[in-house]
Amino acid sequence: MNGSMRKLLTIITEAALESVLIKDLEHLGGRGYTITDARGKGSRGTRNAAWDESSNIRIEVVCDAATVEAIVAHLQACYYENYAMILFVSDVAVLRPEKF
Amino acid sequence: MNGSMRKLLTIITEAALESVLIKDLEHLGGRGYTITDARGKGSRGTRNAAWDESSNIRIEVVCDAATVEAIVAHLQACYYENYAMILFVSDVAVLRPEKF
Amino acid sequence: MNGSMRKLLTIITEAALESVLIKDLEHLGGRGYTITDARGKGSRGTRNAAWDESSNIRIEVVCDAATVEAIVAHLQACYYENYAMILFVSDVAVLRPEKF
Repeated sequence: MNGSMRKLLTIITEAALESVLIKDLEHLGGRGYTITDARGKGSRGTRNAAWDESSNIRIEVVCDAATVEAIVAHLQACYYENYAMILFVSDVAVLRPEKF
Repeated sequence: MNGSMRKLLTIITEAALESVLIKDLEHLGGRGYTITDARGKGSRGTRNAAWDESSNIRIEVVCDAATVEAIVAHLQACYYENYAMILFVSDVAVLRPEKF
Repeated sequence: MNGSMRKLLTIITEAALESVLIKDLEHLGGRGYTITDARGKGSRGTRNAAWDESSNIRIEVVCDAATVEAIVAHLQACYYENYAMILFVSDVAVLRPEKF
């Protein structure tokens, strides 16, 4: 695919943060995002489907490297201390790079 | 992992396209796909869970580069103009490459 | 992002395996995992939402390469013969690498 390279940032965190994170992403230059409900376990302990089906969310943002840097720095400063949150970043090829 | 390299194509689009896209993927040589329900926002505007829980879908297809090219070209020709759709492609290692 | 490199292992398989796979992942050194419900088709045939909404699951594990090797070897030995299961691995950058 003759695509342009962008970064795919995946954020897995507590569902309670969804609305505030959406505002953060828009403010920091994310041009779009995709959210799916998830469950799982991290170093804060098991988040179980029987206990709360939607306790975790998985947010994906495709953007340029500078926007990823800004989002990651903001999330680290605001949420790492008090919320269960992991972030990972991979390289992706996209069409229509002007959208990201 | 002594895996073979393949491409992971992720398609995020309107849920209404699910059945037609499945037929397209099978016709174009995709040997399997995975679909999850999602919500999100792109340049067409917010798709909100409160409005329609399943308004977006996230489709993943693992296949070779030529199949990705064929799928992307088809989606671009058929759906880009009239539907909210983003695509991104990354490199993945797989076992049992004959399945993809 | 000045992150450390880790592996993202994605497992797509039958929902019936969820609880046993979680035990396997913990036993094999995975420090966390994320599960989403999914539907799809692979070489075992269509798993349709109308038939069973949660028939497939998509498990993500971020860990080091050695842990991925151990998990993949175990899954291949225990489940490949009798269950629908695909695995793929990609490279991701993470912050707080001590968590993975």
